[in-house]
Amino acid sequence: MLGRCIGTQRVRQIKRSIRHGKITLLCLFMTVVVLRGTIGAGKFGTPEQDFNDLRDHLYAARKHGDPHRVLTESNQSNNNKNDEASNANDANSYATFDINKILVDEGVDEKPDPNRPYSLGPKISDWNQQREKWLGANPSLGNFIKPNKPRVLLVTGSSPKPCENPVGDHYLLKSIKNKIDYCRLHGIEIFYNMALLDAEMAGFWAKLPLIRKLLLSHPEVEFLWWMDSDAMFTDMAFEVPWERYKDSNFVMHGWNEMVYDEKNWIGLNTGSFLLRNCQWSLDLLDTWSPMGPKGKIRDEAGKVLTRELKNRPVFEADDQSAMVYLLATQRDKWGDKVYLENAYYLHGYWGILVDRYEEMIENYHPGLGDHRWPLVTHFVGCKPCGKFGDYSVERCLKQMDRAFNFGDNQILQIYGFTHKSLSSRRVRRVRNETTNPLEVKDEFGLLHPAFKAVKVSTTS
Amino acid sequence: MLGRCIGTQRVRQIKRSIRHGKITLLCLFMTVVVLRGTIGAGKFGTPEQDFNDLRDHLYAARKHGDPHRVLTESNQSNNNKNDEASNANDANSYATFDINKILVDEGVDEKPDPNRPYSLGPKISDWNQQREKWLGANPSLGNFIKPNKPRVLLVTGSSPKPCENPVGDHYLLKSIKNKIDYCRLHGIEIFYNMALLDAEMAGFWAKLPLIRKLLLSHPEVEFLWWMDSDAMFTDMAFEVPWERYKDSNFVMHGWNEMVYDEKNWIGLNTGSFLLRNCQWSLDLLDTWSPMGPKGKIRDEAGKVLTRELKNRPVFEADDQSAMVYLLATQRDKWGDKVYLENAYYLHGYWGILVDRYEEMIENYHPGLGDHRWPLVTHFVGCKPCGKFGDYSVERCLKQMDRAFNFGDNQILQIYGFTHKSLSSRRVRRVRNETTNPLEVKDEFGLLHPAFKAVKVSTTS
Repeated sequence: MLGRCIGTQRVRQIKRSIRHGKITLLCLFMTVVVLRGTIGAGKFGTPEQDFNDLRDHLYAARKHGDPHRVLTESNQSNNNKNDEASNANDANSYATFDINKILVDEGVDEKPDPNRPYSLGPKISDWNQQREKWLGANPSLGNFIKPNKPRVLLVTGSSPKPCENPVGDHYLLKSIKNKIDYCRLHGIEIFYNMALLDAEMAGFWAKLPLIRKLLLSHPEVEFLWWMDSDAMFTDMAFEVPWERYKDSNFVMHGWNEMVYDEKNWIGLNTGSFLLRNCQWSLDLLDTWSPMGPKGKIRDEAGKVLTRELKNRPVFEADDQSAMVYLLATQRDKWGDKVYLENAYYLHGYWGILVDRYEEMIENYHPGLGDHRWPLVTHFVGCKPCGKFGDYSVERCLKQMDRAFNFGDNQILQIYGFTHKSLSSRRVRRVRNETTNPLEVKDEFGLLHPAFKAVKVSTTS
Repeated sequence: MLGRCIGTQRVRQIKRSIRHGKITLLCLFMTVVVLRGTIGAGKFGTPEQDFNDLRDHLYAARKHGDPHRVLTESNQSNNNKNDEASNANDANSYATFDINKILVDEGVDEKPDPNRPYSLGPKISDWNQQREKWLGANPSLGNFIKPNKPRVLLVTGSSPKPCENPVGDHYLLKSIKNKIDYCRLHGIEIFYNMALLDAEMAGFWAKLPLIRKLLLSHPEVEFLWWMDSDAMFTDMAFEVPWERYKDSNFVMHGWNEMVYDEKNWIGLNTGSFLLRNCQWSLDLLDTWSPMGPKGKIRDEAGKVLTRELKNRPVFEADDQSAMVYLLATQRDKWGDKVYLENAYYLHGYWGILVDRYEEMIENYHPGLGDHRWPLVTHFVGCKPCGKFGDYSVERCLKQMDRAFNFGDNQILQIYGFTHKSLSSRRVRRVRNETTNPLEVKDEFGLLHPAFKAVKVSTTS
């Protein structure tokens, strides 16, 4: 037996060495491929030229085939956790029930035509006129709910697949309840998307084809409000100052200096923004989209963005970085209609807000929308639907519960209740039942909010 | 060592015998207690007298203390899977992350006062007058959106806790998206509840305190539409025939004969119903609620319902059975304002519908609302949020996906897409993009639905 043991060990050692050798060879090969694939520097001229050259370069890569197919495929497999496209043989089997039993293999997506650059749709150049004509013919479906109050459609969504993390869907559910509450109080309609309209624009880019489709289908909508599924309303009483944006078409939270001067990749945030329904916006979407198509284009664009923007980590092109780059390099063309808002938290980074909720309750009140009582708390990086986030799961989920309750308390107080604490799902009564329910004090004006639609205006 | 081994085994055997003995004694004790707790028959007279006697009996049990406390507590632990109340030390740990880390122990619920019968709130007798006065003073918040179209609030909800079954929350999410879509098309607002307002009325009874609270807080709402979380809209084009109900206050799917003649426990369904905002409805809620308080009252009431209704299984009192009993025993008092609707599926039992979707698509079209194209497909008994349902998990989830897609296709077709099949999450294009998006055919009238609010009437 002793003799056989020594022999077995030796065989194992040999097998291990072979595996290590294979891995080493593969790494060497990939290093060579990456070095060959680096875009040469020094080809770029003016910022706008930069952008156009980049776009042409990416289209050329798409058209002439892919010498880096190995790299692309390995990048794709790395990127799957960012990719919301549903692969034919997904298996999210975390229940005692094997959910594979009900998945249907639909085959693979159609391959994009390499001879055509990516396009969100056929070019429309007269949208303002088309829209104006339609609004004139349909006066009962006005684009303003009342003077100074545009008709707004809030758009959000999530993957049609169950979350990889079992609690992820629970937080998506709480998040949409939160949005339903805010929107009900503010006379805003909701579109919750769970369909991937364009397989090439999966992941964070999926919002672009969706937004274009909704703008063109709903001329009565004046502003489309995109909001990420990991963003929650924490000020139920704050009404967006629509008048402030009467000369703007695109409103994001951000800072001019960080975008135009620093080209900082977090100089603005595309997790919560307002986009006016007009020709300008269609053109912007067309200009925004080229970095999106997944695969080589998105990967290469990611490298450019990491190089060109301040502090950007290495990963495939995302819509937010692409917007920073677009604005920074084409300010003259777009800047005058873009409002980078920082007077209130159209998007509020959760990290600097969630520990202060008790202090806010102590010192302030709903309706402020800013650092004192943020309109939106946005859990960037938490990714509760996936397996991995950028922060600890415990901190993220605990704080998401607190943010939800912070907002929910403002709804519950309308009805005389509140959560027992910001960490508790349970509620307690704070106002006795009465035989005169119509005389209760509507402390924050949320019971019959003034922001709601009361009359549809027939004029634009 | 051998001697010690024998000794250890013997010790284990003795400990095991003691454990078994303890369990045997406990079982014997409980058997005695149950036998003592049986209600004597033969005390009941007329149907209405029956109901009042039952109510008084239940209140007496509550008032005079509970000799069956052991039974009550053991029943409570058995009923926990039906009970949505959040116990202090719940642990839904099915993720790799231990969700217990973020649960907060809030202590136990306050004990109800045994000297007072259960009440939804202080008696209000002039609600019609209060409401009329308020509507007169607030003409911009009319209870009719336009002639023949009342202001409707759709109310639904789910537990504040993550589902025991990991995919349960995903189906709750799809279900609320489905409701958001229907309600957006039909000008209906949504209230999604995740708060237990009254710990005594947990589980299916939780809707009663919630409904009362919402009616009294929202006098502008003419009809409250309760809809279970396991019910989905499958006809996006069907508008409820409001005019049909102008003389009714309570509309449920059901059959007169099955309720009034047979007292069949499924003669009506309380998973989807319309309740008018008026004094009559407050009185109905007060009459409906006494069987609800959890514990002895609900258990004893359950026994009565099983005995009195046709085909009812043995379990604690539920709101649906209680309503059948209420109507069957007090028809003269309530019947004239109750409309048991069966001309379309205000509630449609999923078992007889889901295998016919393809046939419906082949032969019919949206807008019919009935067996040809059901308004609502209701997954009674599936309980996707819990651990156990009354049907196979595979069949339930697969059919819920199909029902969701059947409804979702009607939304997607507005935008030129459809699911690849009723079982597939993926979508495909069915209409090319166009440079004239405002000229696309709105096949089912869902793009700019005629049902939506266009003008608020200031008259009731």
